[in-house]
Amino acid sequence: MTDPGVAADVPRRGPAANAELALLLEVAGTPKPGNVDRARDLAALRFEHFLAGAVGARPGLERAAAGDPVGEAFEAAVAGMSEQSGGNTQFGCLLLLTPLVRAATDDDRTLSPDGVAAVCEATTVDDAAGFYRAFEHVDVAVADPPEGMDALEVRRGAEAVPALRDRGVTLFEVMRESAAPVDDHGTPGDANAREWVEGFPRAFRAAEAIRADDGPIVDRAARAFLDLLAEAEDTLVRTQHGPEVAREVRERAAGIGSLDEAEAWADELVERGINPGTTADVTAAALFVALERGVSV
Amino acid sequence: MTDPGVAADVPRRGPAANAELALLLEVAGTPKPGNVDRARDLAALRFEHFLAGAVGARPGLERAAAGDPVGEAFEAAVAGMSEQSGGNTQFGCLLLLTPLVRAATDDDRTLSPDGVAAVCEATTVDDAAGFYRAFEHVDVAVADPPEGMDALEVRRGAEAVPALRDRGVTLFEVMRESAAPVDDHGTPGDANAREWVEGFPRAFRAAEAIRADDGPIVDRAARAFLDLLAEAEDTLVRTQHGPEVAREVRERAAGIGSLDEAEAWADELVERGINPGTTADVTAAALFVALERGVSV
Repeated sequence: MTDPGVAADVPRRGPAANAELALLLEVAGTPKPGNVDRARDLAALRFEHFLAGAVGARPGLERAAAGDPVGEAFEAAVAGMSEQSGGNTQFGCLLLLTPLVRAATDDDRTLSPDGVAAVCEATTVDDAAGFYRAFEHVDVAVADPPEGMDALEVRRGAEAVPALRDRGVTLFEVMRESAAPVDDHGTPGDANAREWVEGFPRAFRAAEAIRADDGPIVDRAARAFLDLLAEAEDTLVRTQHGPEVAREVRERAAGIGSLDEAEAWADELVERGINPGTTADVTAAALFVALERGVSV
Repeated sequence: MTDPGVAADVPRRGPAANAELALLLEVAGTPKPGNVDRARDLAALRFEHFLAGAVGARPGLERAAAGDPVGEAFEAAVAGMSEQSGGNTQFGCLLLLTPLVRAATDDDRTLSPDGVAAVCEATTVDDAAGFYRAFEHVDVAVADPPEGMDALEVRRGAEAVPALRDRGVTLFEVMRESAAPVDDHGTPGDANAREWVEGFPRAFRAAEAIRADDGPIVDRAARAFLDLLAEAEDTLVRTQHGPEVAREVRERAAGIGSLDEAEAWADELVERGINPGTTADVTAAALFVALERGVSV
Protein backbone atom coordinates (compact mmCIF):
# COMPACT_ATOMS: atom_id res chain seq x y z
CA MET A 1 0.00 0.00 0.00
CA THR A 2 1.44 3.33 -0.96
CA ASP A 3 0.41 6.68 0.37
CA PRO A 4 -1.86 8.64 -1.95
CA GLY A 5 -0.91 11.95 -0.28
CA VAL A 6 0.44 14.86 -2.25
CA ALA A 7 4.20 14.59 -2.55
CA ALA A 8 5.96 17.91 -2.32
CA ASP A 9 7.74 19.08 -5.43
CA VAL A 10 11.49 18.86 -5.15
CA PRO A 11 12.60 21.42 -7.70
CA ARG A 12 16.24 21.99 -8.40
CA ARG A 13 17.20 25.45 -7.06
CA GLY A 14 15.92 28.02 -9.54
CA PRO A 15 18.00 30.91 -10.92
CA ALA A 16 16.73 33.38 -8.30
CA ALA A 17 17.64 30.97 -5.49
CA ASN A 18 21.07 30.40 -7.04
CA ALA A 19 21.58 34.16 -7.29
CA GLU A 20 20.72 34.62 -3.63
CA LEU A 21 23.01 31.73 -2.72
CA ALA A 22 25.80 33.31 -4.79
CA LEU A 23 25.44 36.49 -2.71
CA LEU A 24 25.72 34.45 0.49
CA LEU A 25 28.66 32.32 -0.67
CA GLU A 26 30.48 35.45 -1.85
CA VAL A 27 30.34 37.10 1.55
CA ALA A 28 31.14 33.80 3.32
CA GLY A 29 34.39 33.29 1.39
CA THR A 30 37.44 34.28 3.44
CA PRO A 31 39.89 35.95 3.29
CA LYS A 32 38.65 38.46 0.74
CA PRO A 33 41.05 41.29 1.47
CA GLY A 34 39.38 44.58 2.34
CA ASN A 35 35.83 43.26 2.24
CA VAL A 36 33.38 41.93 4.78
CA ASP A 37 33.78 38.17 4.85
CA ARG A 38 33.08 35.28 7.19
CA ALA A 39 35.91 36.41 9.47
CA ARG A 40 35.78 40.21 9.15
CA ASP A 41 33.31 43.05 9.64
CA LEU A 42 33.83 46.69 8.77
CA ALA A 43 32.92 49.33 11.34
CA ALA A 44 29.32 49.94 10.33
CA LEU A 45 28.88 47.24 7.71
CA ARG A 46 28.68 43.78 9.15
CA PHE A 47 28.23 40.22 7.93
CA GLU A 48 24.58 40.08 9.02
CA HIS A 49 23.79 43.11 6.85
CA PHE A 50 24.86 41.04 3.84
CA LEU A 51 22.71 38.11 5.00
CA ALA A 52 19.66 40.37 5.27
CA GLY A 53 20.57 42.05 1.98
CA ALA A 54 20.64 38.71 0.17
CA VAL A 55 17.33 37.57 1.68
CA GLY A 56 15.71 40.91 0.88
CA ALA A 57 16.93 40.87 -2.73
CA ARG A 58 15.27 37.56 -3.53
CA PRO A 59 11.81 38.83 -4.57
CA GLY A 60 13.46 41.15 -7.11
CA LEU A 61 15.59 38.28 -8.38
CA GLU A 62 12.42 36.15 -8.63
CA ARG A 63 10.93 38.90 -10.79
CA ALA A 64 13.93 38.71 -13.11
CA ALA A 65 13.48 34.93 -13.28
CA ALA A 66 9.79 35.42 -14.07
CA GLY A 67 10.70 37.56 -17.07
CA ASP A 68 9.92 41.00 -15.66
CA PRO A 69 11.88 43.89 -17.17
CA VAL A 70 15.49 44.04 -15.99
CA GLY A 71 15.19 47.60 -14.65
CA GLU A 72 12.12 46.87 -12.54
CA ALA A 73 13.51 43.60 -11.24
CA PHE A 74 16.79 45.33 -10.36
CA GLU A 75 15.03 48.17 -8.56
CA ALA A 76 12.93 45.67 -6.59
CA ALA A 77 16.04 43.66 -5.68
CA VAL A 78 17.86 46.79 -4.49
CA ALA A 79 14.81 47.98 -2.54
CA GLY A 80 14.59 44.62 -0.74
CA MET A 81 18.36 44.51 -0.22
CA SER A 82 18.19 47.89 1.50
CA GLU A 83 15.94 46.65 4.30
CA GLN A 84 18.82 46.47 6.77
CA SER A 85 20.78 49.09 8.64
CA GLY A 86 24.24 48.61 7.10
CA GLY A 87 23.62 50.59 3.91
CA ASN A 88 24.76 49.40 0.51
CA THR A 89 25.66 45.74 0.69
CA GLN A 90 25.08 44.27 -2.78
CA PHE A 91 24.03 46.97 -5.29
CA GLY A 92 26.81 46.09 -7.72
CA CYS A 93 26.30 42.36 -7.30
CA LEU A 94 22.62 42.77 -8.15
CA LEU A 95 23.44 44.87 -11.20
CA LEU A 96 25.34 41.86 -12.52
CA LEU A 97 23.01 39.15 -11.23
CA THR A 98 19.74 40.60 -12.53
CA PRO A 99 20.50 40.16 -16.27
CA LEU A 100 22.28 36.87 -15.56
CA VAL A 101 19.17 35.50 -13.81
CA ARG A 102 17.00 36.72 -16.65
CA ALA A 103 19.31 35.12 -19.21
CA ALA A 104 19.41 31.84 -17.27
CA THR A 105 15.63 31.73 -17.43
CA ASP A 106 15.37 32.82 -21.06
CA ASP A 107 17.89 30.25 -22.19
CA ASP A 108 16.13 27.38 -20.44
CA ARG A 109 19.04 27.42 -18.03
CA THR A 110 21.86 27.03 -20.48
CA LEU A 111 23.39 30.32 -19.48
CA SER A 112 25.86 31.71 -22.02
CA PRO A 113 27.77 34.94 -22.65
CA ASP A 114 25.73 35.47 -25.81
CA GLY A 115 22.49 34.94 -23.91
CA VAL A 116 23.26 37.50 -21.24
CA ALA A 117 24.66 39.92 -23.82
CA ALA A 118 21.34 39.73 -25.66
CA VAL A 119 19.44 40.49 -22.44
CA CYS A 120 21.64 43.52 -21.78
CA GLU A 121 21.43 44.82 -25.35
CA ALA A 122 17.65 44.51 -25.33
CA THR A 123 17.22 46.81 -22.32
CA THR A 124 15.07 49.91 -22.79
CA VAL A 125 14.68 53.44 -21.52
CA ASP A 126 12.27 52.06 -18.91
CA ASP A 127 15.01 49.73 -17.70
CA ALA A 128 17.33 52.75 -17.42
CA ALA A 129 14.66 54.50 -15.36
CA GLY A 130 14.48 51.50 -13.00
CA PHE A 131 18.24 51.57 -12.63
CA TYR A 132 18.20 55.28 -11.75
CA ARG A 133 15.33 54.82 -9.30
CA ALA A 134 17.32 52.10 -7.55
CA PHE A 135 19.73 54.81 -6.36
CA GLU A 136 16.87 56.24 -4.30
CA HIS A 137 16.94 53.21 -2.01
CA VAL A 138 20.57 53.28 -0.90
CA ASP A 139 23.76 55.38 -1.02
CA VAL A 140 26.12 54.00 -3.64
CA ALA A 141 29.72 55.09 -4.09
CA VAL A 142 30.15 56.06 -7.74
CA ALA A 143 32.62 58.04 -9.79
CA ASP A 144 31.77 61.51 -11.09
CA PRO A 145 29.88 61.38 -14.36
CA PRO A 146 31.66 61.86 -17.70
CA GLU A 147 31.71 65.37 -19.15
CA GLY A 148 28.35 66.45 -20.56
CA MET A 149 26.59 63.72 -18.59
CA ASP A 150 25.68 65.77 -15.49
CA ALA A 151 21.97 65.54 -16.26
CA LEU A 152 22.32 61.76 -16.22
CA GLU A 153 24.37 61.63 -13.02
CA VAL A 154 23.15 58.45 -11.30
CA ARG A 155 23.19 60.10 -7.88
CA ARG A 156 20.29 62.24 -9.11
CA GLY A 157 18.18 59.07 -8.91
CA ALA A 158 14.60 59.44 -10.11
CA GLU A 159 15.23 63.15 -10.84
CA ALA A 160 17.38 62.17 -13.78
CA VAL A 161 14.61 60.08 -15.36
CA PRO A 162 13.06 62.93 -17.38
CA ALA A 163 16.46 63.62 -18.95
CA LEU A 164 16.82 59.90 -19.68
CA ARG A 165 13.46 59.87 -21.42
CA ASP A 166 14.17 63.08 -23.35
CA ARG A 167 17.37 61.62 -24.70
CA GLY A 168 15.94 58.10 -25.14
CA VAL A 169 18.84 56.48 -23.30
CA THR A 170 18.54 52.73 -22.66
CA LEU A 171 20.12 50.93 -19.72
CA PHE A 172 22.58 49.30 -22.10
CA GLU A 173 23.61 52.76 -23.31
CA VAL A 174 24.03 53.96 -19.72
CA MET A 175 26.33 51.00 -19.12
CA ARG A 176 28.24 51.63 -22.35
CA GLU A 177 28.94 55.19 -21.20
CA SER A 178 30.11 53.97 -17.80
CA ALA A 179 32.29 51.29 -19.39
CA ALA A 180 34.16 53.75 -21.63
CA PRO A 181 37.77 54.63 -20.72
CA VAL A 182 37.85 57.37 -18.08
CA ASP A 183 40.84 59.24 -19.54
CA ASP A 184 43.02 59.55 -22.61
CA HIS A 185 45.43 56.88 -21.35
CA GLY A 186 42.83 54.16 -21.84
CA THR A 187 42.16 53.66 -18.12
CA PRO A 188 39.15 51.36 -18.21
CA GLY A 189 35.75 52.51 -17.00
CA ASP A 190 33.49 50.86 -14.44
CA ALA A 191 34.26 47.16 -14.24
CA ASN A 192 30.62 46.13 -13.73
CA ALA A 193 29.52 48.19 -16.72
CA ARG A 194 32.22 46.47 -18.79
CA GLU A 195 30.74 43.11 -17.87
CA TRP A 196 27.37 44.36 -19.06
CA VAL A 197 28.71 45.62 -22.36
CA GLU A 198 31.04 42.71 -23.13
CA GLY A 199 28.92 39.66 -22.23
CA PHE A 200 30.34 39.12 -18.73
CA PRO A 201 33.76 37.77 -19.82
CA ARG A 202 35.35 37.96 -16.36
CA ALA A 203 32.38 36.37 -14.60
CA PHE A 204 32.26 33.44 -17.02
CA ARG A 205 36.04 32.95 -16.88
CA ALA A 206 36.06 33.04 -13.07
CA ALA A 207 33.10 30.63 -13.01
CA GLU A 208 35.16 28.12 -14.99
CA ALA A 209 38.05 28.61 -12.56
CA ILE A 210 35.69 27.93 -9.65
CA ARG A 211 34.42 24.82 -11.43
CA ALA A 212 37.94 23.53 -12.09
CA ASP A 213 39.15 24.27 -8.56
CA ASP A 214 38.93 21.86 -5.58
CA GLY A 215 37.74 22.14 -2.02
CA PRO A 216 34.82 23.94 -0.38
CA ILE A 217 33.10 26.36 -2.72
CA VAL A 218 33.67 29.28 -0.35
CA ASP A 219 37.44 28.73 -0.54
CA ARG A 220 37.22 28.55 -4.31
CA ALA A 221 35.28 31.82 -4.24
CA ALA A 222 38.01 33.48 -2.16
CA ARG A 223 40.68 32.28 -4.61
CA ALA A 224 38.60 33.52 -7.56
CA PHE A 225 38.32 36.90 -5.83
CA LEU A 226 42.10 37.15 -5.46
CA ASP A 227 42.65 36.19 -9.11
CA LEU A 228 40.10 38.76 -10.28
CA LEU A 229 41.72 41.39 -8.08
CA ALA A 230 45.13 40.63 -9.63
CA GLU A 231 43.66 40.79 -13.13
CA ALA A 232 42.21 44.32 -13.13
CA GLU A 233 42.12 47.41 -10.94
CA ASP A 234 39.08 47.53 -8.70
CA THR A 235 36.67 50.29 -9.72
CA LEU A 236 35.46 51.05 -6.20
CA VAL A 237 39.02 51.30 -4.88
CA ARG A 238 39.88 53.72 -7.69
CA THR A 239 36.73 55.76 -7.00
CA GLN A 240 37.36 55.98 -3.28
CA HIS A 241 41.16 56.06 -3.09
CA GLY A 242 42.50 57.03 -6.50
CA PRO A 243 44.46 55.25 -9.23
CA GLU A 244 47.70 54.76 -7.26
CA VAL A 245 45.96 52.78 -4.53
CA ALA A 246 44.00 50.81 -7.14
CA ARG A 247 47.27 49.88 -8.85
CA GLU A 248 48.94 49.00 -5.56
CA VAL A 249 46.06 46.68 -4.64
CA ARG A 250 46.17 44.99 -8.00
CA GLU A 251 49.92 44.44 -7.87
CA ARG A 252 49.80 43.16 -4.32
CA ALA A 253 47.02 40.71 -5.22
CA ALA A 254 49.13 39.43 -8.10
CA GLY A 255 51.86 38.49 -5.62
CA ILE A 256 49.57 36.46 -3.32
CA GLY A 257 49.99 32.72 -3.74
CA SER A 258 47.46 31.24 -1.31
CA LEU A 259 44.58 32.06 0.99
CA ASP A 260 46.92 31.76 3.97
CA GLU A 261 49.19 34.42 2.49
CA ALA A 262 46.18 36.70 2.02
CA GLU A 263 45.17 36.68 5.72
CA ALA A 264 47.49 39.42 6.97
CA TRP A 265 46.87 41.54 3.91
CA ALA A 266 43.12 41.20 4.48
CA ASP A 267 43.50 42.71 7.94
CA GLU A 268 45.70 45.49 6.55
CA LEU A 269 43.18 46.52 3.88
CA VAL A 270 40.30 46.53 6.37
CA GLU A 271 42.38 48.76 8.65
CA ARG A 272 43.15 51.15 5.79
CA GLY A 273 39.50 51.21 4.73
CA ILE A 274 40.31 49.89 1.26
CA ASN A 275 37.34 47.90 0.02
CA PRO A 276 37.60 46.21 -3.40
CA GLY A 277 33.85 45.96 -3.72
CA THR A 278 33.63 45.79 -7.51
CA THR A 279 35.79 42.67 -7.55
CA ALA A 280 33.41 41.15 -5.00
CA ASP A 281 30.54 41.92 -7.40
CA VAL A 282 32.22 40.02 -10.21
CA THR A 283 32.96 37.16 -7.79
CA ALA A 284 29.27 36.89 -6.90
CA ALA A 285 28.39 36.84 -10.60
CA ALA A 286 30.97 34.10 -11.17
CA LEU A 287 29.51 32.06 -8.29
CA PHE A 288 26.07 32.35 -9.85
CA VAL A 289 27.33 31.10 -13.21
CA ALA A 290 29.18 28.26 -11.47
CA LEU A 291 26.04 27.21 -9.55
CA GLU A 292 23.94 27.36 -12.72
CA ARG A 293 26.55 25.18 -14.43
CA GLY A 294 26.24 22.51 -11.79
CA VAL A 295 28.89 23.29 -9.17
CA SER A 296 27.39 21.98 -5.93
CA VAL A 297 27.59 23.20 -2.37
CA MET B 1 7.74 66.60 -14.30
CA THR B 2 7.70 63.31 -12.49
CA ASP B 3 8.46 59.94 -13.95
CA PRO B 4 5.37 57.92 -14.80
CA GLY B 5 7.32 54.64 -14.75
CA VAL B 6 6.25 51.72 -12.61
CA ALA B 7 7.79 52.04 -9.17
CA ALA B 8 8.88 48.74 -7.70
CA ASP B 9 7.01 47.58 -4.64
CA VAL B 10 9.05 47.84 -1.48
CA PRO B 11 7.37 45.29 0.73
CA ARG B 12 8.49 44.77 4.26
CA ARG B 13 10.19 41.35 4.51
CA GLY B 14 7.43 38.74 4.60
CA PRO B 15 7.24 35.87 7.11
CA ALA B 16 8.98 33.40 4.77
CA ALA B 17 11.85 35.85 4.20
CA ASN B 18 12.11 36.45 7.94
CA ALA B 19 12.18 32.70 8.55
CA GLU B 20 15.00 32.26 6.05
CA LEU B 21 16.85 35.18 7.60
CA ALA B 22 16.39 33.62 11.05
CA LEU B 23 18.08 30.45 9.76
CA LEU B 24 21.00 32.52 8.46
CA LEU B 25 21.36 34.68 11.58
CA GLU B 26 21.24 31.57 13.76
CA VAL B 27 24.18 29.94 12.02
CA ALA B 28 26.08 33.27 11.86
CA GLY B 29 25.92 33.80 15.63
CA THR B 30 29.19 32.87 17.34
CA PRO B 31 30.26 31.25 19.58
CA LYS B 32 27.46 28.69 19.71
CA PRO B 33 29.29 25.90 21.51
CA GLY B 34 29.30 22.59 19.64
CA ASN B 35 27.50 23.86 16.57
CA VAL B 36 28.55 25.19 13.19
CA ASP B 37 28.75 28.96 13.49
CA ARG B 38 30.43 31.86 11.74
CA ALA B 39 33.79 30.78 13.13
CA ARG B 40 33.50 26.97 13.19
CA ASP B 41 32.79 24.11 10.82
CA LEU B 42 32.30 20.47 11.71
CA ALA B 43 34.17 17.83 9.70
CA ALA B 44 31.56 17.16 7.03
CA LEU B 45 29.02 19.84 7.88
CA ARG B 46 30.14 23.31 6.99
CA PHE B 47 28.82 26.85 7.15
CA GLU B 48 28.03 26.95 3.44
CA HIS B 49 25.78 23.90 3.79
CA PHE B 50 23.62 25.94 6.15
CA LEU B 51 23.58 28.86 3.69
CA ALA B 52 22.39 26.56 0.90
CA GLY B 53 19.95 24.86 3.29
CA ALA B 54 18.35 28.18 4.20
CA VAL B 55 18.08 29.30 0.56
CA GLY B 56 16.64 25.92 -0.45
CA ALA B 57 14.05 25.96 2.34
CA ARG B 58 12.51 29.23 1.24
CA PRO B 59 9.96 27.92 -1.29
CA GLY B 60 8.56 25.59 1.39
CA LEU B 61 8.42 28.48 3.85
CA GLU B 62 6.64 30.56 1.18
CA ARG B 63 4.08 27.77 0.91
CA ALA B 64 3.47 27.98 4.67
CA ALA B 65 3.06 31.75 4.32
CA ALA B 66 0.61 31.22 1.47
CA GLY B 67 -1.58 29.07 3.71
CA ASP B 68 -0.65 25.63 2.37
CA PRO B 69 -1.01 22.75 4.84
CA VAL B 70 1.76 22.66 7.44
CA GLY B 71 2.84 19.12 6.57
CA GLU B 72 3.20 19.83 2.85
CA ALA B 73 4.99 23.11 3.42
CA PHE B 74 7.34 21.44 5.89
CA GLU B 75 8.12 18.59 3.51
CA ALA B 76 8.82 21.08 0.70
CA ALA B 77 11.07 23.13 2.99
CA VAL B 78 13.04 20.04 4.03
CA ALA B 79 13.30 18.83 0.43
CA GLY B 80 14.73 22.19 -0.64
CA MET B 81 17.01 22.37 2.41
CA SER B 82 18.44 18.98 1.47
CA GLU B 83 19.83 20.22 -1.86
CA GLN B 84 23.37 20.48 -0.52
CA SER B 85 25.98 17.89 0.34
CA GLY B 86 26.28 18.42 4.10
CA GLY B 87 23.22 16.39 5.11
CA ASN B 88 20.76 17.55 7.72
CA THR B 89 21.28 21.23 8.41
CA GLN B 90 17.95 22.66 9.54
CA PHE B 91 15.29 19.93 9.84
CA GLY B 92 14.47 20.82 13.44
CA CYS B 93 14.55 24.56 12.76
CA LEU B 94 12.04 24.09 9.95
CA LEU B 95 9.78 21.97 12.15
CA LEU B 96 9.49 25.00 14.42
CA LEU B 97 9.48 27.69 11.73
CA THR B 98 6.78 26.19 9.51
CA PRO B 99 3.87 26.59 11.96
CA LEU B 100 5.30 29.93 13.14
CA VAL B 101 5.32 31.27 9.57
CA ARG B 102 1.81 29.99 9.03
CA ALA B 103 0.65 31.60 12.29
CA ALA B 104 2.35 34.90 11.42
CA THR B 105 0.40 34.96 8.18
CA ASP B 106 -2.89 33.82 9.68
CA ASP B 107 -2.73 36.43 12.42
CA ASP B 108 -2.07 39.29 10.03
CA ARG B 109 1.46 39.33 11.42
CA THR B 110 0.65 39.72 15.09
CA LEU B 111 2.30 36.47 15.94
CA SER B 112 1.27 35.06 19.34
CA PRO B 113 1.68 31.87 21.34
CA ASP B 114 -2.06 31.26 21.08
CA GLY B 115 -1.96 31.78 17.32
CA VAL B 116 0.80 29.25 16.74
CA ALA B 117 -0.77 26.82 19.23
CA ALA B 118 -3.98 26.96 17.18
CA VAL B 119 -2.04 26.20 13.97
CA CYS B 120 -0.38 23.19 15.62
CA GLU B 121 -3.60 21.87 17.15
CA ALA B 122 -5.39 22.14 13.81
CA THR B 123 -2.93 19.86 12.02
CA THR B 124 -4.33 16.73 10.38
CA VAL B 125 -3.37 13.20 9.44
CA ASP B 126 -2.23 14.58 6.07
CA ASP B 127 0.11 16.94 7.89
CA ALA B 128 1.51 13.98 9.80
CA ALA B 129 2.06 12.19 6.48
CA GLY B 130 4.00 15.22 5.17
CA PHE B 131 6.13 15.20 8.31
CA TYR B 132 6.93 11.50 7.86
CA ARG B 133 7.69 11.94 4.17
CA ALA B 134 10.15 14.70 5.07
CA PHE B 135 12.38 12.03 6.62
CA GLU B 136 12.84 10.57 3.13
CA HIS B 137 14.86 13.62 2.10
CA VAL B 138 17.56 13.61 4.74
CA ASP B 139 19.00 11.55 7.62
CA VAL B 140 17.82 12.94 10.93
CA ALA B 141 19.18 11.89 14.31
CA VAL B 142 16.19 10.89 16.44
CA ALA B 143 15.60 8.93 19.62
CA ASP B 144 14.08 5.44 19.53
CA PRO B 145 10.30 5.52 19.43
CA PRO B 146 8.24 5.04 22.58
CA GLU B 147 7.02 1.52 23.36
CA GLY B 148 4.20 0.37 21.09
CA MET B 149 5.03 3.11 18.56
CA ASP B 150 7.35 1.07 16.31
CA ALA B 151 4.89 1.23 13.42
CA LEU B 152 5.05 5.02 13.67
CA GLU B 153 8.84 5.19 13.95
CA VAL B 154 9.73 8.37 12.04
CA ARG B 155 12.77 6.76 10.43
CA ARG B 156 10.34 4.58 8.50
CA GLY B 157 9.47 7.73 6.52
CA ALA B 158 6.71 7.29 3.96
CA GLU B 159 6.41 3.59 4.90
CA ALA B 160 4.84 4.59 8.19
CA VAL B 161 2.11 6.61 6.50
CA PRO B 162 -0.39 3.73 6.11
CA ALA B 163 -0.12 3.06 9.88
CA LEU B 164 -0.65 6.78 10.51
CA ARG B 165 -3.76 6.76 8.39
CA ASP B 166 -5.09 3.54 9.96
CA ARG B 167 -4.77 5.05 13.39
CA GLY B 168 -5.88 8.53 12.32
CA VAL B 169 -2.90 10.19 13.97
CA THR B 170 -2.51 13.95 13.37
CA LEU B 171 0.80 15.80 13.34
CA PHE B 172 -0.13 17.44 16.62
CA GLU B 173 -0.65 13.98 18.14
CA VAL B 174 2.71 12.83 16.80
CA MET B 175 4.30 15.83 18.51
CA ARG B 176 2.38 15.18 21.73
CA GLU B 177 3.77 11.64 21.82
CA SER B 178 7.31 12.91 21.22
CA ALA B 179 6.92 15.59 23.88
CA ALA B 180 5.88 13.14 26.61
CA PRO B 181 8.42 12.31 29.35
CA VAL B 182 10.81 9.60 28.20
CA ASP B 183 11.00 7.75 31.54
CA ASP B 184 9.35 7.42 34.92
CA HIS B 185 11.57 10.14 36.39
CA GLY B 186 9.88 12.85 34.35
CA THR B 187 12.81 13.36 31.96
CA PRO B 188 11.23 15.62 29.35
CA GLY B 189 10.68 14.45 25.78
CA ASP B 190 11.83 16.08 22.56
CA ALA B 191 12.33 19.80 23.12
CA ASN B 192 11.02 20.79 19.67
CA ALA B 193 7.90 18.69 20.15
CA ARG B 194 7.35 20.41 23.48
CA GLU B 195 7.39 23.77 21.72
CA TRP B 196 4.76 22.48 19.34
CA VAL B 197 2.52 21.19 22.11
CA GLU B 198 2.92 24.11 24.51
CA GLY B 199 2.66 27.16 22.20
CA PHE B 200 6.41 27.75 21.77
CA PRO B 201 7.06 29.13 25.27
CA ARG B 202 10.86 28.99 25.01
CA ALA B 203 10.97 30.56 21.55
CA PHE B 204 8.75 33.47 22.59
CA ARG B 205 10.67 34.00 25.84
CA ALA B 206 14.03 33.96 24.03
CA ALA B 207 12.64 36.34 21.39
CA GLU B 208 11.86 38.85 24.12
CA ALA B 209 15.38 38.42 25.51
CA ILE B 210 16.79 39.10 22.03
CA ARG B 211 14.59 42.17 21.74
CA ALA B 212 15.66 43.51 25.16
CA ASP B 213 19.36 42.81 24.51
CA ASP B 214 21.82 45.25 22.88
CA GLY B 215 24.38 44.97 20.12
CA PRO B 216 24.46 43.15 16.79
CA ILE B 217 21.61 40.67 16.42
CA VAL B 218 24.01 37.78 15.80
CA ASP B 219 25.64 38.38 19.21
CA ARG B 220 22.22 38.54 20.80
CA ALA B 221 21.40 35.24 19.11
CA ALA B 222 24.54 33.63 20.52
CA ARG B 223 23.66 34.85 24.03
CA ALA B 224 20.11 33.56 23.63
CA PHE B 225 21.51 30.19 22.57
CA LEU B 226 23.66 29.99 25.73
CA ASP B 227 20.70 30.93 27.94
CA LEU B 228 18.49 28.31 26.28
CA LEU B 229 21.24 25.72 26.67
CA ALA B 230 21.50 26.51 30.39
CA GLU B 231 17.73 26.31 30.79
CA ALA B 232 17.07 22.76 29.54
CA GLU B 233 18.99 19.68 28.43
CA ASP B 234 19.51 19.55 24.69
CA THR B 235 17.49 16.75 23.08
CA LEU B 236 20.02 16.01 20.33
CA VAL B 237 22.89 15.81 22.83
CA ARG B 238 20.85 13.38 24.94
CA THR B 239 19.97 11.30 21.86
CA GLN B 240 23.55 11.12 20.63
CA HIS B 241 25.56 11.09 23.89
CA GLY B 242 23.19 10.09 26.71
CA PRO B 243 21.72 11.86 29.74
CA GLU B 244 25.01 12.42 31.62
CA VAL B 245 26.53 14.42 28.78
CA ALA B 246 23.29 16.33 28.27
CA ARG B 247 23.32 17.29 31.96
CA GLU B 248 27.00 18.22 31.86
CA VAL B 249 26.40 20.52 28.88
CA ARG B 250 23.47 22.18 30.55
CA GLU B 251 25.38 22.77 33.78
CA ARG B 252 28.43 24.07 31.96
CA ALA B 253 26.28 26.50 29.96
CA ALA B 254 24.74 27.78 33.19
CA GLY B 255 28.22 28.77 34.38
CA ILE B 256 29.12 30.78 31.27
CA GLY B 257 28.91 34.54 31.79
CA SER B 258 29.81 36.00 28.41
CA LEU B 259 30.45 35.17 24.77
CA ASP B 260 34.18 35.50 25.39
CA GLU B 261 34.00 32.87 28.11
CA ALA B 262 32.18 30.56 25.71
CA GLU B 263 34.93 30.59 23.06
CA ALA B 264 37.19 27.90 24.51
CA TRP B 265 34.23 25.75 25.45
CA ALA B 266 32.93 26.04 21.88
CA ASP B 267 36.17 24.56 20.56
CA GLU B 268 36.05 21.80 23.18
CA LEU B 269 32.51 20.72 22.27
CA VAL B 270 33.31 20.70 18.54
CA GLU B 271 36.33 18.52 19.28
CA ARG B 272 34.24 16.10 21.35
CA GLY B 273 31.56 15.99 18.65
CA ILE B 274 28.88 17.28 21.01
CA ASN B 275 26.34 19.22 19.00
CA PRO B 276 23.43 20.89 20.85
CA GLY B 277 21.35 21.08 17.71
CA THR B 278 17.91 21.22 19.33
CA THR B 279 18.88 24.36 21.22
CA ALA B 280 19.95 25.88 17.90
CA ASP B 281 16.49 25.04 16.53
CA VAL B 282 14.79 26.95 19.33
CA THR B 283 17.24 29.84 18.81
CA ALA B 284 16.24 30.07 15.13
CA ALA B 285 12.58 30.07 16.14
CA ALA B 286 13.28 32.85 18.65
CA LEU B 287 15.07 34.89 15.99
CA PHE B 288 12.06 34.54 13.71
CA VAL B 289 9.70 35.77 16.41
CA ALA B 290 12.07 38.66 17.19
CA LEU B 291 12.25 39.68 13.50
CA GLU B 292 8.46 39.48 13.18
CA ARG B 293 8.18 41.68 16.26
CA GLY B 294 10.32 44.36 14.72
CA VAL B 295 13.90 43.65 15.78
CA SER B 296 16.01 44.97 12.92
CA VAL B 297 19.24 43.79 11.38
